[in-house]
Amino acid sequence: MKTAVFIEPGKMSVQDLPKAQVKQPTDAVLKIVRACVCGSDLWWYRGISKRQANSPVGHEAIGIVESVGSAVTNVKPGDFVIAPFTHGCGHCAACLAGFDGDCMNKTDDEIVGYQGEYLRFKNANWALVKIPGQPADYTDAQLNDLLTLSDVMATGYHAATSAEVKAGDTVVVMGDGAVGLCGVIAAKLLGATRIIAMSRHADRQALAKEFGATDIIAERGDEAVQKVGELTAGAGADAVLECVGTELSVDTAIKVGRPGAVVGRVGVPQKTEMNTNNLFWRNIGLRGGIASVTTDDRQVLLDAVLKGEIHPGKVFTQRFELDEIQAAYEAMGQRRAIKSLLVISE
Amino acid sequence: MKTAVFIEPGKMSVQDLPKAQVKQPTDAVLKIVRACVCGSDLWWYRGISKRQANSPVGHEAIGIVESVGSAVTNVKPGDFVIAPFTHGCGHCAACLAGFDGDCMNKTDDEIVGYQGEYLRFKNANWALVKIPGQPADYTDAQLNDLLTLSDVMATGYHAATSAEVKAGDTVVVMGDGAVGLCGVIAAKLLGATRIIAMSRHADRQALAKEFGATDIIAERGDEAVQKVGELTAGAGADAVLECVGTELSVDTAIKVGRPGAVVGRVGVPQKTEMNTNNLFWRNIGLRGGIASVTTDDRQVLLDAVLKGEIHPGKVFTQRFELDEIQAAYEAMGQRRAIKSLLVISE
Repeated sequence: MKTAVFIEPGKMSVQDLPKAQVKQPTDAVLKIVRACVCGSDLWWYRGISKRQANSPVGHEAIGIVESVGSAVTNVKPGDFVIAPFTHGCGHCAACLAGFDGDCMNKTDDEIVGYQGEYLRFKNANWALVKIPGQPADYTDAQLNDLLTLSDVMATGYHAATSAEVKAGDTVVVMGDGAVGLCGVIAAKLLGATRIIAMSRHADRQALAKEFGATDIIAERGDEAVQKVGELTAGAGADAVLECVGTELSVDTAIKVGRPGAVVGRVGVPQKTEMNTNNLFWRNIGLRGGIASVTTDDRQVLLDAVLKGEIHPGKVFTQRFELDEIQAAYEAMGQRRAIKSLLVISE
Repeated sequence: MKTAVFIEPGKMSVQDLPKAQVKQPTDAVLKIVRACVCGSDLWWYRGISKRQANSPVGHEAIGIVESVGSAVTNVKPGDFVIAPFTHGCGHCAACLAGFDGDCMNKTDDEIVGYQGEYLRFKNANWALVKIPGQPADYTDAQLNDLLTLSDVMATGYHAATSAEVKAGDTVVVMGDGAVGLCGVIAAKLLGATRIIAMSRHADRQALAKEFGATDIIAERGDEAVQKVGELTAGAGADAVLECVGTELSVDTAIKVGRPGAVVGRVGVPQKTEMNTNNLFWRNIGLRGGIASVTTDDRQVLLDAVLKGEIHPGKVFTQRFELDEIQAAYEAMGQRRAIKSLLVISE
């Protein structure tokens, strides 16, 4: 089977590997329909983090179940499914509490190889999310919407639920990448009436507005804090979505909330230590982490996509075939694409 | 009027000062009935923090309104009231959101002098909490319960609401001081079915159990984390109340929660920087800060005391008159009293 692999920083390739197989009773093998490139893939693509040469890559896909292990009863061959990057077992304390991204039975080696023709998916019985019908039943745009439910839309939603966004809230979204833009969608879905998106790129500002942003702030740091103050009569935001992870972004996120606001963060934190006294003295909360993909897809997001209430697939601004994997990464690495789509099979 | 003052570390006195007066339209003057000593008073009593010599002290009391400024209409002379240490204006974004401890119109000089015969109380119109009837209508134990609503019970409750304790939760409470013990009461009031109190003192363990603790852990640090694991089948707690503030306690609090748990902290943080990546990778939340005294008293706590559902006044294990202020501080400073009561007038 053809699978995208990392060669060295800046260089991707497609290799012909042995076809994925069921190895454990809880496995399923999926024939991938669509996959995509994540902002976090750029870390090793850019050489910021280490990755083994010739390793399969990707952690976002939708596909068709081809075969299942003996313990998998919730899905069967032929089913159309979302393949979350999370692999919740469904029965540990984390999964039961709705935090399947922190499943206590997950293994480190499972989140690879989604950018390929076939994928061995562990913990398939609970973690996979069944989509009604078959790919042919959906439009091209709907397939893209469904694909975002494997990670990016669920991650934006996790930022919003972690920030405890409520109906009527004023929300600030830090970050105009695909996750931040999905955070805007999530804030609106949860009933926020004012959504302030921090963005300095015209195309992303436009998409943020299309997704529900009511205000755009192009400034950063303390200038951005001041702008939020001006927009909220000095009060600050009720909830803040931190979808970047840099020290400056986290610091700004904490400062733009009103007393009692919660910062919901999904941007992987780049700095280890931070001053949390700034949180304490203003009752600012800090929540977030790895998304609850299966949980949130089942409870909210798949339904919202199927009803056409949200259109997160619009974050895919460039489309590639698997053989074009180098171009797909370059488009994101050079910020020409908000997110690169990979169409793998029909 | 007689008022307790700080002389130097380890030395308290009572001085005769000019009687408190209404100075602004939003002021009230209260005749204090009962007051008490807070664990946070011990910082400057022990010389850990600086305080000006001869400065009036105390920030917890119940009393009778003696006079009010022209803008005060919610209470009138003769009313029996709780005097919260918070001074919410009632109309800023923080107060409206229920975080009156972070009132955006508070001034720094207002939280002094509660340990005295009379008190000038700012922002009296909204911040004071009216108690039905008069002191003579209540038993001695009930007056003590009411007194805790000026700070300690509201602070324990803030830890519990910050930790988002829900019915059926397993809760860990860090700290067996008066605040931690009130945290146990609060966790039970919010419906927690299992309450694990961290305590190594027999008298405090007994009171924790009387207040609703189902389990006691005397170990600290990683040994305590292991014990919580044993008690929860490896899962960890649904919510954690951090009522100490030391680095070790905060670190332990973060480790004993299951993925997705929130640490509600009211212990004033002693370390500025902390590693928040430990939070992110397990979706542990960190909330808390200064209590919402007026808000929570009005919405929940006064009612719970009046109905006899909670008995937080039991944290007062020693009783003093105002002239015995030195002994009242010594009893707490030497850990002979859980909390020192000051009976000032009848």
